[in-house]
Amino acid sequence: MSNHYLALKQHFTQISHFEHFSALGDWDQATMMPMGGSEGRSDAMATLAGHIHGMKTASWLADFIDAAATESLTALEQANLREMKRAVMQANALPTELVEAKTKAAYRCENAWREQRKHNDWQGFKPNLEAVMALVREEAAHRAAATGLSPYDTLLDKFEPGITSARLDDIFRPLRGELPDLIRRVRDRQASEQMAPLEGPFPIAAQEAIGRELMQLLGFDFNQGRLDVSSHPFCGGVPGDVRLTTRYSEQEFAGALLGVIHETGHARYEQGLPLALRGQPAGAARSMGIHESQSLFFEMQLGESPAFIDKITPIINRHLHKSFSAAELTYHYSRVKPGLIRVDADEVTYPCHILLRFEAEKALLDGSLSVADLPDFWSSQMSSLLGINTDGDYRNGCMQDIHWTLGELGYFPSYTLGAMYAAQLRAAMEQQLGPLEELIRQNRLAEVFGWLETHIWSQGSIKGTDQLIQAATGESLSGQYLLSHLKRRYLGE
Amino acid sequence: MSNHYLALKQHFTQISHFEHFSALGDWDQATMMPMGGSEGRSDAMATLAGHIHGMKTASWLADFIDAAATESLTALEQANLREMKRAVMQANALPTELVEAKTKAAYRCENAWREQRKHNDWQGFKPNLEAVMALVREEAAHRAAATGLSPYDTLLDKFEPGITSARLDDIFRPLRGELPDLIRRVRDRQASEQMAPLEGPFPIAAQEAIGRELMQLLGFDFNQGRLDVSSHPFCGGVPGDVRLTTRYSEQEFAGALLGVIHETGHARYEQGLPLALRGQPAGAARSMGIHESQSLFFEMQLGESPAFIDKITPIINRHLHKSFSAAELTYHYSRVKPGLIRVDADEVTYPCHILLRFEAEKALLDGSLSVADLPDFWSSQMSSLLGINTDGDYRNGCMQDIHWTLGELGYFPSYTLGAMYAAQLRAAMEQQLGPLEELIRQNRLAEVFGWLETHIWSQGSIKGTDQLIQAATGESLSGQYLLSHLKRRYLGE
Repeated sequence: MSNHYLALKQHFTQISHFEHFSALGDWDQATMMPMGGSEGRSDAMATLAGHIHGMKTASWLADFIDAAATESLTALEQANLREMKRAVMQANALPTELVEAKTKAAYRCENAWREQRKHNDWQGFKPNLEAVMALVREEAAHRAAATGLSPYDTLLDKFEPGITSARLDDIFRPLRGELPDLIRRVRDRQASEQMAPLEGPFPIAAQEAIGRELMQLLGFDFNQGRLDVSSHPFCGGVPGDVRLTTRYSEQEFAGALLGVIHETGHARYEQGLPLALRGQPAGAARSMGIHESQSLFFEMQLGESPAFIDKITPIINRHLHKSFSAAELTYHYSRVKPGLIRVDADEVTYPCHILLRFEAEKALLDGSLSVADLPDFWSSQMSSLLGINTDGDYRNGCMQDIHWTLGELGYFPSYTLGAMYAAQLRAAMEQQLGPLEELIRQNRLAEVFGWLETHIWSQGSIKGTDQLIQAATGESLSGQYLLSHLKRRYLGE
Repeated sequence: MSNHYLALKQHFTQISHFEHFSALGDWDQATMMPMGGSEGRSDAMATLAGHIHGMKTASWLADFIDAAATESLTALEQANLREMKRAVMQANALPTELVEAKTKAAYRCENAWREQRKHNDWQGFKPNLEAVMALVREEAAHRAAATGLSPYDTLLDKFEPGITSARLDDIFRPLRGELPDLIRRVRDRQASEQMAPLEGPFPIAAQEAIGRELMQLLGFDFNQGRLDVSSHPFCGGVPGDVRLTTRYSEQEFAGALLGVIHETGHARYEQGLPLALRGQPAGAARSMGIHESQSLFFEMQLGESPAFIDKITPIINRHLHKSFSAAELTYHYSRVKPGLIRVDADEVTYPCHILLRFEAEKALLDGSLSVADLPDFWSSQMSSLLGINTDGDYRNGCMQDIHWTLGELGYFPSYTLGAMYAAQLRAAMEQQLGPLEELIRQNRLAEVFGWLETHIWSQGSIKGTDQLIQAATGESLSGQYLLSHLKRRYLGE
């Protein structure tokens, strides 16, 4: 008999039902809700979040988890129990007063930041960020006490279970070593190429029709999801009803389409999570890095590959009534140029933005960097990584992202972890199925998705992160696959 | 001190936060959700409903309500406590097993009905309806024991607090007596008029633009609400974010527009509920009949009045690129014709459909009518009220509505109560502000809405139903105002 396990399973199913409404509330707020609804929504969301937190910190859970561990469980059930334990531990890590204090400070910081950033107002922003950082350090200390990890590692672990900063140092080292020179070489090579810009305007209805056709091509199930518009693209909803968004500009269409392809990667992961574990902790996506690996596999490995651009060029031309060549689209998709802003960065320079933030977070957490010294640190890192001086430009420097205003440290590495996982997954897939370019040209995309479904999507959180990647690729995460991918695509090496 | 009252108030605010998601889930399901999301949604909605039910039946509530009654409360607080007591009593009225059995039987009956109705399959439908009716009788017996009311009156009281079937008999008597002859006279009068049909097609985008412009004219606040499409028009959402829907046909536009005007009446009531009592039982709409009075005031008293049709004719023509005259629109808006289907009925014949259902419900509840005898009863009532024989036509007879399949008896009278309240409110408003036709022609709609806001919307559930109508109109509900309105509009009397 496994009575305690069954009671826990039922409890977590109920939690997932409340989380269903939390996901719906978030999606609706970003896509549908009129401004006047925000006060009522935020009150309701706060009550819901409190209720879910209460369910995850119920005092009987610890005893039930211990008792369930002595019951006769299948391997799946054991994995689920492990993830339940992790969820309960995470929920219990912080005292309520700290959660409330951090929520309040983050809200104040983010709200003021929206104006301060526009005015490059570092002096106004600094004390707010200092207040948030002080609470983040407190959070990390509490989590460190609960987990035995180092303070910064506990923050990483929230998003990428199992990763440590020592391991990230190792994985990131080759990128840090090779990227600056690689970028210079790519820039030199691209300097000789010249093509005219793509002439717009591009009607939004046509862009949306292209997006839907690409989603279909990428196997998105519209019976189990939607495409809408929001000011920041995201993939939300619940596994049986996955809702992704993009944003359109009439002047430029690649951004919206790459956004759709990116979010479709997230969406297929969610749609492909194991049905038998739906609502259970082990049935959820493994980590932020793995999630990002799916979106970046779709966007970068697949979406920006020459064969895929060949395939979608007629679709784009048909809806836009244009006659762009695949070479033109490829040209504009693949420009590499160091810039100030992370979210605007290309595939090659993007990791530099993450390496900088990772170093800053480590130093902010261990106290070797103060908030006051952050702008100088930023400028010196940007200089050495991308050859850009950011002195005095706070708005496009350390004030550009929302993450730190919210006290979310430890999240940034996920972006580059995702790019590295994606490149490594592609290499493993190609070992088994043959070159991705060939699979695309031979209309064998279903095999590509089948491989991802088998090795990643259907695995949910059954395995640990490292175990998942080992099982899928035969080895632990390595930064070399991303470097090889970039050299092959941008230098023909 | 009023500690118990404050604890109750806080508890009901929390309940309203969960009800926020229940409203959002309903709206989303009808307008946005892909089919594949329905299983996950219905599981989540069931958990949420159970949680809300649990909060309303918490064992400490009765003691707190008793204790609060001894505290020093304002008149508003006393009204709120009275409504809390009513909500708790309603939630506790039925044993959980009965609620579950009824939900199950209703689900089975409704699901099968969707097909059975298409095939006029009375024999298949009958046993399912009998099962539902048996449980409705059980429900009524439980409610009667808890309230001291008669079984059918307890069902009426769910939707129209304070009403009884004896009182409805009195109010409906003049309608039953006068309507059949009135309909004949209107039909005779209209027989001499002839106009060609309005030539379509009418593009849906243009109809939607008209709808939005009419909503604005009717004072709908788009900062606090939305207009969308669903297969059955409704008004949902929450007071700060009221979401109404309509449905469009390219062949005919009056249906969609009258639907928008109707739902805007519901919406303005919701948007105008007392802000100070938001989330509290006394801050909610008073009853289904009062709610329907607002939608019917907007649709029938206002929307179908000659001055209003004059005002909106240019708007309609501008969007549709037509040159209809107000007389043409009025002609097509005001045809009176007895028909089989309640939801298609005009203002004059509609009450007959309700009188029939009210008689049937009374008889089904007191046992004098069996489900088996329902079709004969239906046909004989349709004959005497509308001169229509429905023998053998179950699909367009007693199988036409969803209400009974769901076990919702007691709801139907609300529709005609609403029409009667609306006519009576108009008469009282005209005593103070002058003829509605003049107010419309003089662009004084804001005064009309101001009057409704003062007397109905801002009152929420502070007063009882009868008290509310007495305060607004100087007397209790009377059926005479509706009859006078119909005679004036359709016979010029």
